[in-house]
Amino acid sequence: MTDVALGPNRYGKSAIRLVKIVRGEAGHTVRDLTVAISLGGDFEASYVAGDNSLVVATDTMKNTVYAFAREHLTGSVEAFGSVLARHFAAVPQVERATVSIEEHAWRPIGAAADAFWRDRSSTRTASIAASRDTLTFEAGIADLTLMKTARSAFTGFPRDEYTTLPETTDRIMATKLSATWRYEEGELDFDELFQAIRSTLLEVFAAHESESVQHSIWLVGQAIVDRHPEVAEITMTLPNLHHWLADLSPFGQPNDREIFIATTEPFGLIQATVRRS
Amino acid sequence: MTDVALGPNRYGKSAIRLVKIVRGEAGHTVRDLTVAISLGGDFEASYVAGDNSLVVATDTMKNTVYAFAREHLTGSVEAFGSVLARHFAAVPQVERATVSIEEHAWRPIGAAADAFWRDRSSTRTASIAASRDTLTFEAGIADLTLMKTARSAFTGFPRDEYTTLPETTDRIMATKLSATWRYEEGELDFDELFQAIRSTLLEVFAAHESESVQHSIWLVGQAIVDRHPEVAEITMTLPNLHHWLADLSPFGQPNDREIFIATTEPFGLIQATVRRS
Amino acid sequence: MTDVALGPNRYGKSAIRLVKIVRGEAGHTVRDLTVAISLGGDFEASYVAGDNSLVVATDTMKNTVYAFAREHLTGSVEAFGSVLARHFAAVPQVERATVSIEEHAWRPIGAAADAFWRDRSSTRTASIAASRDTLTFEAGIADLTLMKTARSAFTGFPRDEYTTLPETTDRIMATKLSATWRYEEGELDFDELFQAIRSTLLEVFAAHESESVQHSIWLVGQAIVDRHPEVAEITMTLPNLHHWLADLSPFGQPNDREIFIATTEPFGLIQATVRRS
Amino acid sequence: MTDVALGPNRYGKSAIRLVKIVRGEAGHTVRDLTVAISLGGDFEASYVAGDNSLVVATDTMKNTVYAFAREHLTGSVEAFGSVLARHFAAVPQVERATVSIEEHAWRPIGAAADAFWRDRSSTRTASIAASRDTLTFEAGIADLTLMKTARSAFTGFPRDEYTTLPETTDRIMATKLSATWRYEEGELDFDELFQAIRSTLLEVFAAHESESVQHSIWLVGQAIVDRHPEVAEITMTLPNLHHWLADLSPFGQPNDREIFIATTEPFGLIQATVRRS
Repeated sequence: MTDVALGPNRYGKSAIRLVKIVRGEAGHTVRDLTVAISLGGDFEASYVAGDNSLVVATDTMKNTVYAFAREHLTGSVEAFGSVLARHFAAVPQVERATVSIEEHAWRPIGAAADAFWRDRSSTRTASIAASRDTLTFEAGIADLTLMKTARSAFTGFPRDEYTTLPETTDRIMATKLSATWRYEEGELDFDELFQAIRSTLLEVFAAHESESVQHSIWLVGQAIVDRHPEVAEITMTLPNLHHWLADLSPFGQPNDREIFIATTEPFGLIQATVRRS
Repeated sequence: MTDVALGPNRYGKSAIRLVKIVRGEAGHTVRDLTVAISLGGDFEASYVAGDNSLVVATDTMKNTVYAFAREHLTGSVEAFGSVLARHFAAVPQVERATVSIEEHAWRPIGAAADAFWRDRSSTRTASIAASRDTLTFEAGIADLTLMKTARSAFTGFPRDEYTTLPETTDRIMATKLSATWRYEEGELDFDELFQAIRSTLLEVFAAHESESVQHSIWLVGQAIVDRHPEVAEITMTLPNLHHWLADLSPFGQPNDREIFIATTEPFGLIQATVRRS
Repeated sequence: MTDVALGPNRYGKSAIRLVKIVRGEAGHTVRDLTVAISLGGDFEASYVAGDNSLVVATDTMKNTVYAFAREHLTGSVEAFGSVLARHFAAVPQVERATVSIEEHAWRPIGAAADAFWRDRSSTRTASIAASRDTLTFEAGIADLTLMKTARSAFTGFPRDEYTTLPETTDRIMATKLSATWRYEEGELDFDELFQAIRSTLLEVFAAHESESVQHSIWLVGQAIVDRHPEVAEITMTLPNLHHWLADLSPFGQPNDREIFIATTEPFGLIQATVRRS
Repeated sequence: MTDVALGPNRYGKSAIRLVKIVRGEAGHTVRDLTVAISLGGDFEASYVAGDNSLVVATDTMKNTVYAFAREHLTGSVEAFGSVLARHFAAVPQVERATVSIEEHAWRPIGAAADAFWRDRSSTRTASIAASRDTLTFEAGIADLTLMKTARSAFTGFPRDEYTTLPETTDRIMATKLSATWRYEEGELDFDELFQAIRSTLLEVFAAHESESVQHSIWLVGQAIVDRHPEVAEITMTLPNLHHWLADLSPFGQPNDREIFIATTEPFGLIQATVRRS
């Protein structure tokens, strides 16, 4: 068995569910995070020799997240994540520590100081990776479900013997968008940037004329990289959640882009990165 | 086998996914429904004799939903559902037709006329039941996730040998609320009523001092029945999504209702009906 | 607000996840249960007055389940559930205690004494309800996914202007079956009965000629009630998970009941009770 | 905007649900696949210019899967996938076509020729990637839930100020394992290999003494690479689904590794590759 070796490996703790209540004078604030920690480094002995002497217990990772939250979860998730990532990257046997965070939004009910509803319409994400002397920041948005009811076409594609799809100049485009972008180095206001990038994304999604999901990804991604110099690159994943025009002709009815059958499977899936060249 | 008989039974079609695009001058509107049809009546022969001569095919039910949507889905889901329910209740062998609808909300992106984001924060529901000469309306809200960060207590409960829970006068109460209410008969503006009842629900949830989830259900339900004479009764189901105070004492830190562990299981589950007496 | 009253209500704890390892001489056994407790009774004061003095805490329910597992989880889930149900029904303010249990199956890996794989193919369920002097037992099976690839027809159904479905004498019938049955009173071997009823269900499902899902429910239910006198009645819920014949004619191919598109929505849904008359 | 460029990209169709009924003399066989197609290549114009002239429609991909199933889905999913992957890789603008397949198992009910139950205990996976002149095969198993009730330890790990986990020499190890392995080139009997590798995996999982999840991954992976020369490397992902010993001391009971609380979050997550060196 001498010719078998350990390849790439990492380990950590996932789904650490942390809620912090900030009890301000003007009202409370809810921070609701799902945190994952992942470490890479000198852990081969734990695999090949069952030697745990260098293995930071994942239970310790979980404890650290809760223990750090009081002091360090005071601003952006990126700031909190960077404290955690640096803490773990300072452990000698760790070469790379990655902290992934999902932030779940809670909004005040009206003007209430201490009552909230959860806004499930999208999730803010962040991934902070630290080595001994580097720190990189990715941010993102997940599960944002969008629809264009006009100005979405799909024409001019090649036809072979297995092609039955008609061309269309006016279809519904629906998607559950996920995007992650990597920030350039520098002092950044992560909260402000997130809102600005999200606004660009929504604005361009609403405004553009789409020739395909690919085209939409490009236009949105291009605008984000172009307008936000802090963004080095963005990767977007868009399922194409097909809406088929219902055939009402058996019932003697026309159906001019009015009644659709929403479907969940199969779905198109388009993923691309747009970056500063 | 002569002593075996058919008992209660019903059948229908579920998860009919219907999207209607209303292309108005001032912009589009998206109606996005999940519809289920269920019939009861003289269907015994289909079970005991394999005789389908009275069985309205569930595929026909689906077709009917799409075919009716063009003409009849112009206002509230209750209005649409009542047309469908009456259609099926008019079939001679049908004694009771129930149409259940979930409406998924799409909001315009900014001022866009033809681009939308899906608001997943809650789902509006309706259930319309028709017999030959009756029609009853239930409405509801599902998956509304709420939290109170103050003014929620749980004290004074009995203690036996299996009780370890400490009393608390200031806990987090979090829940994913579902409510359905039955309307009194009469001419009703279902859309306006839904918004008004939802507002009452949120307002009372935010304002009240809670002694328990049971107490909260009562106060919310009582206010809804009291303020909205159109509501005959309301049934609310509230999971108690426990948030446990993290024990930071091993790390030398206090934790005065600040850092919590959010949990999904086990959960308390409280369900009650409040009605006009 | 004097005309508002509390209606039906119940409360309890759900999703109590209990694993018991029985370390026998010949090998270990894994018992893996999800338990829910629900109580009804004299709890009105907790709702209308915020008075918890009679409210058994749901946390206490959870503790009781774990505390009882050592001594009382030694045989069937019905036996374990009845001890729990009687315990809670003995609380003076409780009129009815219901214990619902799902048992998740773990099978030994080969002949291993202490290693197991989880058999996810179906879940055994039980529901035990106790009042001061009654005890009723329901058992069931959930999430059992079945398919007939022959001898399933659907013909002779009525056609109206919205009917497009062709008749078929040889379709695929696929379903994710759930069944619950109520036992007659008496001394019963619940484990043996469950296996016997499950065998009858599978045998009749495989053997019968189906004219419809309704017909299948009847034949399976009738056989169970007929062959197992311990069963007072059985309720079955069968989604009809449609498999549509793929249209290969555009590609110049026949398709004689060979290539199908499996779908998840919409689905037919048929539910019926069969009972001793 | 001249400094923005398209980076890595791919697109395709996911969740293509295909069922094939093979009607043999001795009985039927059900093949139930979920297929995804993904293409990379010269698709930049579709993004940056909205030019679809090279875009194979994802609807065409779906059609191709169904059209190929009659003739080509006669043996292993790897064989079927390779025909599909080669078909798409032969399109001039395609540089790389990847076909990912999940096979869902249906087992005959007893000796029935035409009735089946779905075995949900694990899913067989395959991923076939083709370029103009290369073809690589990965296979795998997903969602296999396993437990060791003895011979699983976790000791000797470092302790810092955030460590509270006690050492244990006898814990429960539970996991929902996913593994994918890449095959060496050559003529392979994929079905036989899958069964043999699955057997090795289960056998070693059952037999080994585990010092940690990392150690278990190594021992299982090492055995697979060592015993199956057709396997170039294997990547395994194991969540550590924690089972915490219930504290029964408040109820005056001992609990010697008998009663456990099964949890779903947070969970450890360990991923590693083992390969021929």
